[in-house]
Amino acid sequence: MKISALLTSAGINIGLCALFLSLYSVLRKQPGNVSVYFGRRLAQEHSRYRDSFILERFVPSPSWIVKACQYKEEEILSIAGLDAVVFLRLVVFSIRIFSIAAVVCVFGILPLNYFGQDTMHHGNIPSESLDAFTIGNVKVRSPWLWVHCLALYIITFSACMLLYCEYKSIGRMRLVYFTRSLPNPSHFTVLVRGIPKSTEEPFTDTVKNFFTKYHGSSYLSHQMVYRVGKVQKIMTNVEKVYKKFVHLKDTAFDQRHGPPIYRCGLCGGTSNTFQLYRNESDLSVKKSDLGHFHPNTEEKECAAAFVFFRTRYAANVASQVLQTSNPMLWVTDLAPEPHDVYWSNLWLPYRQLWIRRIGTLLASIVFMFLFLVPVTFVQGLSQLDQLQQVFPFLKGILKKTFVSQLVTGYLPSVILQLFLYTVPPTMMLFSALEGPISHSGRKKSACLKVLYFTIWNVFFVNVLSGSVISQLSVISSPKEIPTQLAKAVPSQATFFITYVLTSGWASLSSEVMQLFSLIWNFFKKYIFGWKDDPTSVPSFPYHTEVPRVLLFGLLGFTCSVLAPLILPFLLVYFLLGYAVYRNQILNVYCSKYETGGLMWPTMHNTTIFSLVLAQIIALGVFGIKESSVAAGFTIVLVILTLLFNEYCRQRFHPVFKSFSAQDLIEMDSEDEQNGRMEEIYQQLHPAYCQFPPHTQDVCDVEVEGSSEADRDSSRGVENDFSHPTLPGLPVSRLRRAVSLLSVLINLQNGRLLK
Amino acid sequence: MKISALLTSAGINIGLCALFLSLYSVLRKQPGNVSVYFGRRLAQEHSRYRDSFILERFVPSPSWIVKACQYKEEEILSIAGLDAVVFLRLVVFSIRIFSIAAVVCVFGILPLNYFGQDTMHHGNIPSESLDAFTIGNVKVRSPWLWVHCLALYIITFSACMLLYCEYKSIGRMRLVYFTRSLPNPSHFTVLVRGIPKSTEEPFTDTVKNFFTKYHGSSYLSHQMVYRVGKVQKIMTNVEKVYKKFVHLKDTAFDQRHGPPIYRCGLCGGTSNTFQLYRNESDLSVKKSDLGHFHPNTEEKECAAAFVFFRTRYAANVASQVLQTSNPMLWVTDLAPEPHDVYWSNLWLPYRQLWIRRIGTLLASIVFMFLFLVPVTFVQGLSQLDQLQQVFPFLKGILKKTFVSQLVTGYLPSVILQLFLYTVPPTMMLFSALEGPISHSGRKKSACLKVLYFTIWNVFFVNVLSGSVISQLSVISSPKEIPTQLAKAVPSQATFFITYVLTSGWASLSSEVMQLFSLIWNFFKKYIFGWKDDPTSVPSFPYHTEVPRVLLFGLLGFTCSVLAPLILPFLLVYFLLGYAVYRNQILNVYCSKYETGGLMWPTMHNTTIFSLVLAQIIALGVFGIKESSVAAGFTIVLVILTLLFNEYCRQRFHPVFKSFSAQDLIEMDSEDEQNGRMEEIYQQLHPAYCQFPPHTQDVCDVEVEGSSEADRDSSRGVENDFSHPTLPGLPVSRLRRAVSLLSVLINLQNGRLLK
Repeated sequence: MKISALLTSAGINIGLCALFLSLYSVLRKQPGNVSVYFGRRLAQEHSRYRDSFILERFVPSPSWIVKACQYKEEEILSIAGLDAVVFLRLVVFSIRIFSIAAVVCVFGILPLNYFGQDTMHHGNIPSESLDAFTIGNVKVRSPWLWVHCLALYIITFSACMLLYCEYKSIGRMRLVYFTRSLPNPSHFTVLVRGIPKSTEEPFTDTVKNFFTKYHGSSYLSHQMVYRVGKVQKIMTNVEKVYKKFVHLKDTAFDQRHGPPIYRCGLCGGTSNTFQLYRNESDLSVKKSDLGHFHPNTEEKECAAAFVFFRTRYAANVASQVLQTSNPMLWVTDLAPEPHDVYWSNLWLPYRQLWIRRIGTLLASIVFMFLFLVPVTFVQGLSQLDQLQQVFPFLKGILKKTFVSQLVTGYLPSVILQLFLYTVPPTMMLFSALEGPISHSGRKKSACLKVLYFTIWNVFFVNVLSGSVISQLSVISSPKEIPTQLAKAVPSQATFFITYVLTSGWASLSSEVMQLFSLIWNFFKKYIFGWKDDPTSVPSFPYHTEVPRVLLFGLLGFTCSVLAPLILPFLLVYFLLGYAVYRNQILNVYCSKYETGGLMWPTMHNTTIFSLVLAQIIALGVFGIKESSVAAGFTIVLVILTLLFNEYCRQRFHPVFKSFSAQDLIEMDSEDEQNGRMEEIYQQLHPAYCQFPPHTQDVCDVEVEGSSEADRDSSRGVENDFSHPTLPGLPVSRLRRAVSLLSVLINLQNGRLLK
Repeated sequence: MKISALLTSAGINIGLCALFLSLYSVLRKQPGNVSVYFGRRLAQEHSRYRDSFILERFVPSPSWIVKACQYKEEEILSIAGLDAVVFLRLVVFSIRIFSIAAVVCVFGILPLNYFGQDTMHHGNIPSESLDAFTIGNVKVRSPWLWVHCLALYIITFSACMLLYCEYKSIGRMRLVYFTRSLPNPSHFTVLVRGIPKSTEEPFTDTVKNFFTKYHGSSYLSHQMVYRVGKVQKIMTNVEKVYKKFVHLKDTAFDQRHGPPIYRCGLCGGTSNTFQLYRNESDLSVKKSDLGHFHPNTEEKECAAAFVFFRTRYAANVASQVLQTSNPMLWVTDLAPEPHDVYWSNLWLPYRQLWIRRIGTLLASIVFMFLFLVPVTFVQGLSQLDQLQQVFPFLKGILKKTFVSQLVTGYLPSVILQLFLYTVPPTMMLFSALEGPISHSGRKKSACLKVLYFTIWNVFFVNVLSGSVISQLSVISSPKEIPTQLAKAVPSQATFFITYVLTSGWASLSSEVMQLFSLIWNFFKKYIFGWKDDPTSVPSFPYHTEVPRVLLFGLLGFTCSVLAPLILPFLLVYFLLGYAVYRNQILNVYCSKYETGGLMWPTMHNTTIFSLVLAQIIALGVFGIKESSVAAGFTIVLVILTLLFNEYCRQRFHPVFKSFSAQDLIEMDSEDEQNGRMEEIYQQLHPAYCQFPPHTQDVCDVEVEGSSEADRDSSRGVENDFSHPTLPGLPVSRLRRAVSLLSVLINLQNGRLLK
């Protein structure tokens, strides 16, 4: 590919981007799209779109970028949670490191590469091949290879320093976020699975006896998990339909009192007394209608329970200690946040889980390798001759320069991109089958799977299939991998640059445009005539976006020294991404559950992997160029990078696995001194109610979410309900109402607070 | 190699074995060698050798084998601890599985291999090549290959069933051993490292404040670890010399009161009051002589301490929970048993340990690869032509059949064996540098290193260098490894059979003979005129014997289907080993410290590795023989074996990592009900005294052991002292004396029981 083709591609993409962003800046001002572009605000801040001046609404403006960038980190933290901040930190880290890399490589290495061959005649730059800008153009035993090695050192050291600072500050942020957060029922709760079946007593008595005996001083009470049978599922669906009608009827009423999300006061959301009492009276009718719903027979109890403890520390200890000498029984884990619980997985027998995990691992690997077929086909497109042989009728069209440039420079990425769209839903499905106990755990697992998948299928397969005929022959000789990669990566740089342009830039445009939501919203509103449902705000698709940003980081690191031309494009991607992701996090997505920055170790490790891979490839290149000094220094660099990673793992990683006794005990004693413990205890049971009988229309979305979870596993469009972590200790006049209600509920459920 | 050469080799070895064993049965009856062959009995049971009839003493007899086999497992458990039982279980497991394998393979596969080629003419068996008995002799696409596959299935399933039973019963044994054992100070104690340095207060106050604040309800007291400086080391040596004199003077007196080991009452050993008071008065003199010894300045305190808790459960929780948000500070681990503490490693800064671990790992790998040089040379010996080219003067000698058979069949193993003798001390040195906190941890780590080393250097390198010219070319193509191994292993079967004969049988003979100890004992007694020192009884060299037994298991599994001739020899090895190891454990070695069967997971995993390796090699063979059905079934078998291993890991392994809350709490409550807790508390401090001032001649062997530990890292000859785990609640009349003394000691140390 020549510079001119690259410029064509860049031109198309810049045009498309500009078009999409302008369209977005217009569309977001239309009141009809407010639920698409301001879902989070509608749901959480209840800001109504102001009716602005009619002309302004149709003039594109970049003001949204300015607005998005105005927010401070603390504000984002309070609005969208720590995960969002960590994700933005990753983008900021990428911007920083690739700014440094761009300066070093564009000014230091690009000229060296271009003038690498003494004998080469340089024509005008547009008709120059892109290969002239890669390290492939530097002659063997060039005395200038030390500059490449130096650049590699600068990039690695900067990256490590930045990574260290980020790890440290995110670790601290996680701690602050945890310790300063409002009391969270999940901190006091342990999920117990693998409760042994006893013929004499029901599960609930077994649990009570066990924890009274062995954790008597700290055990508070527990809450069994019930298995929803077929009949119950049908009932749930009936309930849903019923609710829909009620919802339609109530809409006018509801809107006067704020969006329906406010009715979730009992399970954790803030609310007002009037709303609550209204619910109570409202639902007493419903109870008589659908009274069969409540689990009152003990056969439905399954071998899992939420156990509540008096202190955070006790819960933490109980979750970490081996309970009995049979590790398959009484398995304890810290409970996920109430709205994060993946109910339908809780009643899976614990013994099954290890085999499920292996099964999904194998399925993912098979899926990864089956995906080679389309990728190989896509790579064939960049060789036009092959394409013409397969489809002879294209010969005429392909002869035209513009078309051929379009096909080689643009089409492969687009096709690859379309295939890649099927990956996240598949991985979400696999992760759901694995049996995670929380939605966030499922998303994290899917994120890892998508990450491995993307790195393997976008990077490795493209690199290897582009230059070597058979991938498998390379895999079978690991010793030659550095050399093979060193040959392949510079020659595949063209593809990666176009990939950044198409997949990167275009993905950001489509992210900000929310094309699917827009069209769906249009149909919903104007064709079906449905009302907006503020509960259907999607959560941020970390499982697609984190792997994407990390993949571009990988491309950046591996190509930076070898083919520095990629860096400016990448930098534009990250800068645009910064604005877009901030905007989306602030306006569009709800943060439904929180892992507390657990993604960072993955991001850190992937970045280290990218760095080491870049170094190994550089090692191969220095080997080919017969520069033993540079190769020697690169080996030292690899060892130093790995040591740095090990240090970070020792120093920071344990904090991401569990909280420290010191922090937990201090939080506990603070709450005890303030006398807040009793309040907290009273909120534990309602928080983890599986079928809250009196708040059916409030909480049942959780049940829906779990029963539908396998189906709606596509990109973030999960219908589970969002309530903030805990009531945040509701205003005093509300307290009595809440406690009264929770006692009532428990009385009726036959499960009094113990 | 031909059958006749094999028989020569076998003949030599059987002769040597018989000679050694007869010699042993005579030597063990000589009163002069009683300290060599009955070290444990002398030290622990105080049995004196009866002066038997003079003629009987010079007649070889196999009675020792009968005696060794008479003991029951419970007796061995009480005499030598769980580790010894687990090791013997490994031997028994090997006997069982290889009996099954021998029956299946010798009667099922050997004839198939021998008559595998229709066209082959069979001469008389002695002049037959050994290759005729391997799978290499079976013709391509033989219809009989399913028999090999079936044999593999039978062996694998038997092995898995036996492994499952063993894992289950050893897990249970570990539990019983733990719960029924006498109260052990290590169960109540946590070792804290990485105590943060404070300018305001000494370490001891920091520790007290921290644990009072965060573990107030369960914290009992603590004991700082002191750093021994240069001056102190010299003092220790002076002390030792002084002790030697006292020991020489006291010997006559001591012997009247039982062996000197009995003086250790204060630190845990049983004793009698007279002895104790004698020590006290005796040592008050010594104290005035060597008063500078005690650490009384605070500069010497280092950032480590033993913290004592009120209950086992509390100690266990404190050891598992992350203490602060900086994982490099307040690092807690369950303390090793008092006499198992590796004192000189405790004052290593915790921050150093990860880099030490990486350093020793790299050093071990380098050592492993440097070892290739002698091994390659040894392999050259089996090709006589090469040897004759290098040393032309040997031509005449090597022409003689007997000599050439000796050289090809015997010499390579002997040379390899001699080189292998340097490995365990080196690995012990590496493991000591790693910074383990206990002697048992060091030995376990060394055991793993020796295991990897042995499997790599004895199995893989021999297999690969024997058939392929360059090892590295094979390593670089993993896909071909099954095929390469399949070609190499049958042809190397000869070497492995001779290896079993020489290294296996001979190692058992030399183990039972204790040649080095015998000679050393002779010199000590008759040349230097030293008295027997019952404290110098060695501990069982698990780090050499476990890898050896596992290696023979590996050879057995990999060769069983391919070259079944190895199995009878192997079975003899294991049977003989059973008798020898039982005898040695009962008579010779002291069990100084106990890991509680922690070796078993390693043994299990190695056996699974051997099985899978055997299957992969068989897969390669079936590939070469073009039997796709057998290959397909073998792939299924590999997957099943790995699944079985994963199941065992899930089901049994956690019990080997920590004890369960249930067991700990039950033990605690039992002790509380019996009112034994106060007694236990009083014994915690004395147990972990680093420089017990008044029991210097009793306890100082610990200090010696740690300061000398790096030097005497050779095969098990460690001079650290052995006292039984805890006093076993000394007889009531002794109690007051003990508590009085311990209070006195603590008063003088300025470290009162808190």
